[in-house]
Amino acid sequence: MKIGILGGGQLGRMFIQNALKYDDEFYTIDPASDAPCHNISYFTQGNFKDYQTVLDFGKDKDVVTIEIEHVNADALAELENQGVKVVPNSKIVKTIQQKILQKEFYKENDIPSPDFEIMDGSSEEIKIEFPFVQKLNTGGYDGKGVQVIKDADDLKKLWVEDSVLEKLVDIDKELSVIVAKNERGETKTFPVTEMVADPKLNLLDFNICPTNISDDVAQQIEKITNKFLEVVESPGLFAIELFLDKNGKVWVNETAPRLHNSGHQSQEGNANSQFEQMYRVVTNSPLADTEAFTFSGMLNLVGADEFSGKVIYDGLDEVMKMPKTYVHLYGKTETKPGRKMGHINVLADSREELMDKLISIKSKVIVKS
Amino acid sequence: MKIGILGGGQLGRMFIQNALKYDDEFYTIDPASDAPCHNISYFTQGNFKDYQTVLDFGKDKDVVTIEIEHVNADALAELENQGVKVVPNSKIVKTIQQKILQKEFYKENDIPSPDFEIMDGSSEEIKIEFPFVQKLNTGGYDGKGVQVIKDADDLKKLWVEDSVLEKLVDIDKELSVIVAKNERGETKTFPVTEMVADPKLNLLDFNICPTNISDDVAQQIEKITNKFLEVVESPGLFAIELFLDKNGKVWVNETAPRLHNSGHQSQEGNANSQFEQMYRVVTNSPLADTEAFTFSGMLNLVGADEFSGKVIYDGLDEVMKMPKTYVHLYGKTETKPGRKMGHINVLADSREELMDKLISIKSKVIVKS
Repeated sequence: MKIGILGGGQLGRMFIQNALKYDDEFYTIDPASDAPCHNISYFTQGNFKDYQTVLDFGKDKDVVTIEIEHVNADALAELENQGVKVVPNSKIVKTIQQKILQKEFYKENDIPSPDFEIMDGSSEEIKIEFPFVQKLNTGGYDGKGVQVIKDADDLKKLWVEDSVLEKLVDIDKELSVIVAKNERGETKTFPVTEMVADPKLNLLDFNICPTNISDDVAQQIEKITNKFLEVVESPGLFAIELFLDKNGKVWVNETAPRLHNSGHQSQEGNANSQFEQMYRVVTNSPLADTEAFTFSGMLNLVGADEFSGKVIYDGLDEVMKMPKTYVHLYGKTETKPGRKMGHINVLADSREELMDKLISIKSKVIVKS
Repeated sequence: MKIGILGGGQLGRMFIQNALKYDDEFYTIDPASDAPCHNISYFTQGNFKDYQTVLDFGKDKDVVTIEIEHVNADALAELENQGVKVVPNSKIVKTIQQKILQKEFYKENDIPSPDFEIMDGSSEEIKIEFPFVQKLNTGGYDGKGVQVIKDADDLKKLWVEDSVLEKLVDIDKELSVIVAKNERGETKTFPVTEMVADPKLNLLDFNICPTNISDDVAQQIEKITNKFLEVVESPGLFAIELFLDKNGKVWVNETAPRLHNSGHQSQEGNANSQFEQMYRVVTNSPLADTEAFTFSGMLNLVGADEFSGKVIYDGLDEVMKMPKTYVHLYGKTETKPGRKMGHINVLADSREELMDKLISIKSKVIVKS
């Protein structure tokens, strides 16, 4: 099968890496000539936000998919018109890439998501109470395009762009659940994972599985995932990011229509990884079992502050001596502060052992130049 | 690191697939333009048995390794002279690729291997008792270059070429153990696996782990692997193929100085796979833990008789519905009778469940055209 992927980053790279165990051809497109996928696929340097570029890239493929949601969705719709299979489809990509449509999708489908109001260019009056979160309608990624407005004083920071203004949740835990649906209508859900974010970079830091949640919380999440899988009118793999608030209620923060950082620990922690599941979705194969064998966790390898240039991973040798510890680098030669360069997965027999290992690894490795 | 691999087959492909999680560059060479590695590495079409070709291929690499032992070992020696790291080194490759030297290596080091005599062009008299096995000194592979001589009548079949004539072992079980040694002198051993061969094709059929062996047999094997790792004067990953005879004695059949079909189930069955271990060896990294988590097994997907041409995998969809079942195809577009096209790994909670799954899969899938 000729599989075209919009985006040539690490998500695409790990997708292709896993899928090399099947007999397909992979085509990727990315603006960066040295994108992580460039040397493991048929690579086109180009802008996946450009209508004609996406059309030209996709027209001769058996299926077109994405590893980033900020792509030209109109071109995806036109590819569908021309008979090319697009997974996830253009409609859900459009819905998710625009925060306003995404919030309306939750509201329409009774999927709990924090209260919000829409701010467009013409809005003058803000009714939502402080503190609230401003999320730009389009273009947010890895914590960009999102800010907290604490009080009236903060209003001067407000971006004058189409946005969602959302009630700030008093977060107890950040959770994530990855779900999949194929064209045959089969669905599968990965075990819920728990994130611990680095407050400075707003990038995922540790991600662990299983999480300590009550039966009630588990049931709320199950209700959300079941509802989502029921109403989503597209095959796809979706990462649903959740907040558990301090009153024990679960809210959907947002959904990514693609592979997700919060699913990386599934590479060694589950019967099958999110990358395998994505392959099953894209090729409309039977969905894979997602059972977690043991405790698993992940930490991102992020470029340290004050280092830019050819990357050096200090301390990796020590980490490779640790049992059940798995290093995944993304083939990026240049580091810069905050850049995601790789991740490390660990397995453990208990949550305590897991956390100890993750903290130990974090203290050992530094991504410098 | 620039890693050069002599051979571009499935072993190289799976090695590269796994190693894509590190930041290296992979170069392969193979006579076949459509070799499994051709589209996932910097590929040279060429003959790895040719001295100058191997020299030209290897001279600018940081390390040169092999995924097949039938390569020009003199060129490897010359690369070593020129300062290129070769893993495994030319000396052990020479020893192993010549059955006569290999048998003498076992004898010198008190590693139990069936009694033998050497037949060269000038030998007239054969002293070894019937039945015996003739193994050509060079060029044997996947059961080729090996034959059983049952009685005096059979002597007319004898190949008139340099050979080892080896006492036929009355086999109870065929076992295999994969061991690794790095330049730092660290060693690791994978759990022993048990093979069930297809008598017709003489290719590995099922390979399962763990195996039902007595403590005494386990100790004999441990003694063999310890001795081998002690005396082998080269870093490398080695597959030691063993016979357990009907008197409970273990014999070394032969050793492959490379990744091996009998280690494929380690991809999902062990804490780390043979492919990861090979990467650790080649890059002189700390060796990986090899613990088996559960029962695991593998069956080869071999081209069915009477089918040649563009491959079709009949029944694969059914197999992909089975939990803890992993399909690995080798990127070969053309099938022919007996060609290794892929394999399927399964995990199970018991030996009985494992065998049931393997037998069920074998009945479901047919590799045709």
